[in-house]
Amino acid sequence: MRKRLRELGIEIGTLPTGKYNAITDVAGVLVGHRTVIYDEPRVARTGVTMIVPRNNEIWHNYAFAAYHSFNGNGGMTGLPWMDESGMLGSAIAITNTHQMGVVRDAMVAYSVENDYKDAFILPVASETYDGWLNDIDAFHLTKEHVDEAIANSVSGPVEEGNVGGGTGMICHDFKGGIGTSSRVVEIEGEQYTVGALVQANHGDRELLRVDGIPVGRMIGADKVPLPWITPPQGTRTSSIIIIVATDAPLLPVQCKRLAQRATIGYARVGGTGHNGSGDIFLAFATGNDLPARPRTQLRSLRMLRHQQLNPLFNATADAVEESILNAITTAETMTGYMGRTAYGIPLDQLEEIMKIHRKW
Amino acid sequence: MRKRLRELGIEIGTLPTGKYNAITDVAGVLVGHRTVIYDEPRVARTGVTMIVPRNNEIWHNYAFAAYHSFNGNGGMTGLPWMDESGMLGSAIAITNTHQMGVVRDAMVAYSVENDYKDAFILPVASETYDGWLNDIDAFHLTKEHVDEAIANSVSGPVEEGNVGGGTGMICHDFKGGIGTSSRVVEIEGEQYTVGALVQANHGDRELLRVDGIPVGRMIGADKVPLPWITPPQGTRTSSIIIIVATDAPLLPVQCKRLAQRATIGYARVGGTGHNGSGDIFLAFATGNDLPARPRTQLRSLRMLRHQQLNPLFNATADAVEESILNAITTAETMTGYMGRTAYGIPLDQLEEIMKIHRKW
Amino acid sequence: MRKRLRELGIEIGTLPTGKYNAITDVAGVLVGHRTVIYDEPRVARTGVTMIVPRNNEIWHNYAFAAYHSFNGNGGMTGLPWMDESGMLGSAIAITNTHQMGVVRDAMVAYSVENDYKDAFILPVASETYDGWLNDIDAFHLTKEHVDEAIANSVSGPVEEGNVGGGTGMICHDFKGGIGTSSRVVEIEGEQYTVGALVQANHGDRELLRVDGIPVGRMIGADKVPLPWITPPQGTRTSSIIIIVATDAPLLPVQCKRLAQRATIGYARVGGTGHNGSGDIFLAFATGNDLPARPRTQLRSLRMLRHQQLNPLFNATADAVEESILNAITTAETMTGYMGRTAYGIPLDQLEEIMKIHRKW
Amino acid sequence: MRKRLRELGIEIGTLPTGKYNAITDVAGVLVGHRTVIYDEPRVARTGVTMIVPRNNEIWHNYAFAAYHSFNGNGGMTGLPWMDESGMLGSAIAITNTHQMGVVRDAMVAYSVENDYKDAFILPVASETYDGWLNDIDAFHLTKEHVDEAIANSVSGPVEEGNVGGGTGMICHDFKGGIGTSSRVVEIEGEQYTVGALVQANHGDRELLRVDGIPVGRMIGADKVPLPWITPPQGTRTSSIIIIVATDAPLLPVQCKRLAQRATIGYARVGGTGHNGSGDIFLAFATGNDLPARPRTQLRSLRMLRHQQLNPLFNATADAVEESILNAITTAETMTGYMGRTAYGIPLDQLEEIMKIHRKW
Repeated sequence: MRKRLRELGIEIGTLPTGKYNAITDVAGVLVGHRTVIYDEPRVARTGVTMIVPRNNEIWHNYAFAAYHSFNGNGGMTGLPWMDESGMLGSAIAITNTHQMGVVRDAMVAYSVENDYKDAFILPVASETYDGWLNDIDAFHLTKEHVDEAIANSVSGPVEEGNVGGGTGMICHDFKGGIGTSSRVVEIEGEQYTVGALVQANHGDRELLRVDGIPVGRMIGADKVPLPWITPPQGTRTSSIIIIVATDAPLLPVQCKRLAQRATIGYARVGGTGHNGSGDIFLAFATGNDLPARPRTQLRSLRMLRHQQLNPLFNATADAVEESILNAITTAETMTGYMGRTAYGIPLDQLEEIMKIHRKW
Repeated sequence: MRKRLRELGIEIGTLPTGKYNAITDVAGVLVGHRTVIYDEPRVARTGVTMIVPRNNEIWHNYAFAAYHSFNGNGGMTGLPWMDESGMLGSAIAITNTHQMGVVRDAMVAYSVENDYKDAFILPVASETYDGWLNDIDAFHLTKEHVDEAIANSVSGPVEEGNVGGGTGMICHDFKGGIGTSSRVVEIEGEQYTVGALVQANHGDRELLRVDGIPVGRMIGADKVPLPWITPPQGTRTSSIIIIVATDAPLLPVQCKRLAQRATIGYARVGGTGHNGSGDIFLAFATGNDLPARPRTQLRSLRMLRHQQLNPLFNATADAVEESILNAITTAETMTGYMGRTAYGIPLDQLEEIMKIHRKW
Repeated sequence: MRKRLRELGIEIGTLPTGKYNAITDVAGVLVGHRTVIYDEPRVARTGVTMIVPRNNEIWHNYAFAAYHSFNGNGGMTGLPWMDESGMLGSAIAITNTHQMGVVRDAMVAYSVENDYKDAFILPVASETYDGWLNDIDAFHLTKEHVDEAIANSVSGPVEEGNVGGGTGMICHDFKGGIGTSSRVVEIEGEQYTVGALVQANHGDRELLRVDGIPVGRMIGADKVPLPWITPPQGTRTSSIIIIVATDAPLLPVQCKRLAQRATIGYARVGGTGHNGSGDIFLAFATGNDLPARPRTQLRSLRMLRHQQLNPLFNATADAVEESILNAITTAETMTGYMGRTAYGIPLDQLEEIMKIHRKW
Repeated sequence: MRKRLRELGIEIGTLPTGKYNAITDVAGVLVGHRTVIYDEPRVARTGVTMIVPRNNEIWHNYAFAAYHSFNGNGGMTGLPWMDESGMLGSAIAITNTHQMGVVRDAMVAYSVENDYKDAFILPVASETYDGWLNDIDAFHLTKEHVDEAIANSVSGPVEEGNVGGGTGMICHDFKGGIGTSSRVVEIEGEQYTVGALVQANHGDRELLRVDGIPVGRMIGADKVPLPWITPPQGTRTSSIIIIVATDAPLLPVQCKRLAQRATIGYARVGGTGHNGSGDIFLAFATGNDLPARPRTQLRSLRMLRHQQLNPLFNATADAVEESILNAITTAETMTGYMGRTAYGIPLDQLEEIMKIHRKW
């Protein structure tokens, strides 16, 4: 039975989590998965995950947002308009590399079908590469899968590990996938929640650290086989998409600061941004309503001061760190394309290591 | 009968053009269109245009490249990797807004099918919005159209106006579409060619200038009706994609300089980057070979010095300016979706105005 | 007697100007010059110009701001914090290339001396190169000059041409310097002012256009000698700093859009961003108060919608275009370092050309 | 007696260091300090540190370079031209916040005086804030200090801790300052060196980790007093400048990748980029000669392939991590302005903690 990090008695940082320790702790943020697993006619270990802000009203009530590319060997659509406007106007999809496009167009169609007058036609779709476990050249996904992922989106607990876009992913040379976490901070008497969700498909075994302890070196290839014996195309491609959400009233420049702070959590776990990695981080803030209509009125906004942001920065770092670790501890061993197997981290070994070393 | 600007006796700047006054004057650059026009079951006035560098070897012999977003209300895929690596590793597609994704994925599939070992899976697809003349919500395009556009790509003269991705476009409130132009410069005894190709779908009538003369004010709505009486979604969406190619040995930072210089030509014609416009400019340079294989060897490169670039800057500005004007003068009047008509600029009126005013 | 462009009967665009057709039409924006001209012991043709927002309260009541680098062969301090925070917290200085640093530190000292508790210590100073007319290696400027420029800052009419930082500058191969202009637009019943101020030291004679007419080609070296016969260091260095101010309630991402729009006016006059040019554009918006204190409270803001910005974009382009032309028409012929002379554009010739050609 | 980290038996990562474990292990890179310490007439605990590439030929033999701003609440001059050209053409100065300008102008003067025909006039100066130990408003530094720092620059061992620009700095609430480290990697049979030098003035005690172990939590305020009881201006200002050097033949886009990789080492030690922190990272590569003259010839370059860069990425992360720790372990307790004391980390306590916990 797989467990989340905290179920193993391991906590990252000192800030309290939200109710579900998930991105859905940010009010209105839903998560929906469509997992696609079958062996015939061609092996599918893939899917799509949707992060859906504002209870799916995001298509006509935008959110301030920004992204940071730590290592741009990956794809995310909608970036020029996010840069220009500082806004997110769609749900956020995460899927496999070959089908970011069909997922993106499906979101356009969804917007047109459901919200005609204010259809938002520059949606955000992103990807990591699952071609080691998934026969990615089979292009398994269709518009229907995207619609289902949106339809499946819910608040509350979030499924992690081998689900949705994370189905076939590999992280720090263990089985990876979807992970999530959250933190609650108080600023001048107000509570704000920061949530993170990752599709984790990056990293080396030997660099993996859990709360500083170099667990990856201790669970070497002698204990758990490495995947990637024969990397596709002669080079390992790997990536992580990190989505950070908050209910704090942040401006786009401040979302950008949060997006870049995801690097901190990523680095603590052992990410270094290898050449083949597409490490793209997006942060959005729902603390201001930005309705598409009426079109003519000035917007009234609130903004946290920059000097008030440190707790949010810490919360982002911690939530991202724990999200990546949750992706690893919840993902089960999976066998896929060409009979390859990616192994889940052995939780008993992890617990034992942490027990010995975590005396502080 | 539509004509190119020079066939009307109007020249932009003083630099000589290449043989075809087209982006294909840059050795190895091919252009292919797939135009999609029909009225049933739903009205199609759309298509896809492919700019194919290195005689289609671009998929495994990359080119240095960079982009500049003048107004990011548009889409282009592949940008994070272009920023990170400074390289282009695919053909460049331009199509309509709703189907940038399917075109992008089709290029992934093309790369996998044709070049398996070095498949480049972060291709560049871009878009402008043709939803006034084209029933864009019908999603007309398929993977086959993309394959055909690549198959159609040729060197030599380039079809302009209502073709490929430009089929349903509108520019400065006249019919627009695809336009191209080139310039040849000499630097320290070496000749270099700069070519531009635009998919022009932007701009106000009253701001249109031809070689400085405010032609748009002189051919007002009283003479030629304006399109967009009832803009879709209550707001005009418009855009221009500009592709700049050169055979000069430029580094990525220098490609970025060329990409931003496209703004100059764009501004001279009357572009101002209105909010709804997706004005994204990409420049690539084929002067260095960047083969995908062998993977292990140091690359040997040449580089023009920064202080040698001024002629290329001027060439870019002039070629872009003339490309936009070519898109306008070659595009024929078109009637499309909901019986709407976008009118080609009347060439006789244009010639007459220019004759009177161009005494300098 | 030198004149502004409108005094010659030439108007750019159709929008109305503010009362003084100057950046000071934006309420609270002051401009102060300290001009430094003497021949002994070493030739000085230099100075410093200060743009001082919020009636000099900018040091503790910030403004949203952003910059755009069209060609970064120049300097401006304070950029990382402006990128990070979206804020301007100091006056803006423009001076000569060699002394941007002393001017910057003088502003730090000014802030410490005048506003201790909220001293802003990352001020914005910028520069263009006046070393053809000014013996720049003499480092003429001191902290006192900076203090005097701030003390001299006033609202109302702005001195243009050979004043302040613009004293020794050359533009489109005529004498250049400081120029300014403004526009008033109406958005949903509210009036907003956009003002521009330039320190213009860039451009080629043959590319100069006045409202589209290629005036530079018509007033060739046969009529008015070119400067730069022997360029210092074998290469022409030139630059333009453009400051755009508005009282509209814009966010930082929107200021960035305005800053980039300065390119449009710059291009229309004939700027192309040659390699040696430092063309850096900054826009700030005073429509929201951002007091440094109290430190703990949420900020309440207003924001124009992105789709409401087009009039501001047009106003920026037109005001910048006219500012550059004002710098040229107001600057008198000057003789300086090594007996070199830069000639003011002959206003009679300009008027005659414009009379003949401006029939539209 | 203070020690470097390795003298305490602690090593970061597994890659070998260069001969001196210093940025000077990159051939041609010199480091010079000018430390300014006195108590009368006003308390000085400041200075300037110079990183001088190519044995001080950098002024006319440039290096490819790029920077990354992790948190831009700090200053660095010369950034627009570095972005535009991808080049560094001066030594790199690090000093205190109030005098970045005078240091920058002094470098202009130095360039003019020493290298007239190719004087590089957009030099790189950067800063962190030492106003807690140093009476920063006294503006202690002069042009002579800058000249001396350059004159003092040498290869071989680098002084660390309370020297040069690092004199008055504080890091993770212990005394900080200058630190350096290096790594050697092998790529396809060639050896390349990566060196880092930091001016470390950032971070919280409780977040400090040494090779993953949360040392900061274990040496709390009860054991070693925290500085900053009364922060100047009611807010803690802190920062880190990180300089990364390599002899590998990298292009500017690749330098940018290295610059951003500095974040990894920074995060592992406990940096999170608090609001008041100016965390600006610069990387340069000397593997290609870029002589200013002759001006007319094409440059011939070599370039490592992107997929060969992973060892350099790891080396950067490790060298930065160790540099920050070296700054902390070498810096002695210092008393300065207003009698304030910043304490050096107690090396015996550090050693003991590490002995207990480093069993892996």
